Amino acid sequence: MRITRFLDDRGTLHRGVDLGDGSADICVDGADEPTGRVMPIARRLAPVVPSNIFCIGHNYRAHIEETGAQVPKNPVLFMKPTSAVNDPGAPIVIPACCTRGDEVDYECELAVVIGTAGRDIPVETALEHVAGYTAANDVSARRWQKHGGGGQFIRGKSFDTFCPLGPVLVTSDELPDPQTLDLSTTVNGEVRQSSNTADMLFSVAELISFISQDTTLLPNTVILTGTPQGVGVARDPQVFLQPGDEVTVEIQGIGALRNPVAAAP
Amino acid sequence: MRITRFLDDRGTLHRGVDLGDGSADICVDGADEPTGRVMPIARRLAPVVPSNIFCIGHNYRAHIEETGAQVPKNPVLFMKPTSAVNDPGAPIVIPACCTRGDEVDYECELAVVIGTAGRDIPVETALEHVAGYTAANDVSARRWQKHGGGGQFIRGKSFDTFCPLGPVLVTSDELPDPQTLDLSTTVNGEVRQSSNTADMLFSVAELISFISQDTTLLPNTVILTGTPQGVGVARDPQVFLQPGDEVTVEIQGIGALRNPVAAAP
Repeated sequence: MRITRFLDDRGTLHRGVDLGDGSADICVDGADEPTGRVMPIARRLAPVVPSNIFCIGHNYRAHIEETGAQVPKNPVLFMKPTSAVNDPGAPIVIPACCTRGDEVDYECELAVVIGTAGRDIPVETALEHVAGYTAANDVSARRWQKHGGGGQFIRGKSFDTFCPLGPVLVTSDELPDPQTLDLSTTVNGEVRQSSNTADMLFSVAELISFISQDTTLLPNTVILTGTPQGVGVARDPQVFLQPGDEVTVEIQGIGALRNPVAAAP
Repeated sequence: MRITRFLDDRGTLHRGVDLGDGSADICVDGADEPTGRVMPIARRLAPVVPSNIFCIGHNYRAHIEETGAQVPKNPVLFMKPTSAVNDPGAPIVIPACCTRGDEVDYECELAVVIGTAGRDIPVETALEHVAGYTAANDVSARRWQKHGGGGQFIRGKSFDTFCPLGPVLVTSDELPDPQTLDLSTTVNGEVRQSSNTADMLFSVAELISFISQDTTLLPNTVILTGTPQGVGVARDPQVFLQPGDEVTVEIQGIGALRNPVAAAP
């Protein structure tokens, strides 16, 4: 099923099964069971309200090459605050504190949403804990990421609007193998990233197992599984997001997550 | 006021004003207003349910010296997941994945709890956003922190039980100047850390202003403001937490946060 969270034309929040025609079949509270009550979608929201957002760095082989990073022995784990979540179609805002020139970059990522809580989850059963998948843009302010926080990525990854999620949550039964999905980033119609989740160094199952070591993954934990090659900071010449741009992250079987880019107010 | 979250002897959750005699005056839901209904405290819980947990590294001058780190130009920002929260008196569990020898360390920290949401908060008015303060132990697995995640601290900071908070939330009117508080860590009665929040490189107000740049601080955001000198990893010889230890983080005006240390089950 393709689950959408959305506002109707009165601004009321709903969760339902996306019917693909601009409407959704409303689900009963807390379950994925459609009720037959159909509503038009006025505005889509991020399809999940995350409890925590874990992110993985340097997880696509060709991206590790383009950045000149060493191949990590373990997944490179960092986080984003839940305040960074952004909706499909809503602007990615260039932070006012990015005053030293262009630095805001896109990163298309497969986002895993945990359904069943777990801890010390073996690789073999890890995918049983997945409620579903959505697309994410791990928007990053590169100077803040690399130089603004003593080597810790968080400051550059945690500004408001820096975690677009959507357009829908696709339940895991529809994507039984998450390591076979094409994913891409397009900026103003130009393809900037184009890869397949087969290039991941650590698979979705391995990431879930690693993060859950001695660590409870709560329901609605979101895991951003890393980005492939083609990020703006690694291009020659470098290219960063500008107000007026439109960024689209697209993942096979999930859909297109489109966000305009806006200047700070 | 000293706010406590606790279970009564039937296991029912309450929030109230700590009367200092093992009982609390229950507050109305969502407010700090006591009702006059007094209940005995059977088991204390972390006094806040965090929305996000931000942490600051290298923020006490003498701790920067002991670690040999450079004096940072900006606060070193990282996070812990909310799943790491631990209660006063509950065991800090040595993770089963810490298999390469002792590495689990204490860090006493003043924890700031945001009450009023804000964004782009000026230093001058930052403390108006603080609901109150509590004590935190930023428990850290040093090998995982330094070598297990490609230089990102999160893996070593995010195991279950690694964020004890308590014993109470002291409302900000009782601690008008957070830069004058003695804080310490004691392990089995031996003082290991002893400092004062006056040694912070970036004050509480400066940290709130920095983190809130282009970033909404949601209510119940918790900020761990860094630890002073005396951490186990920087001692000669190094000393790490062992099953059977008792760790006490104490902060002037807040109280003592005690946790036993236990082996992984």
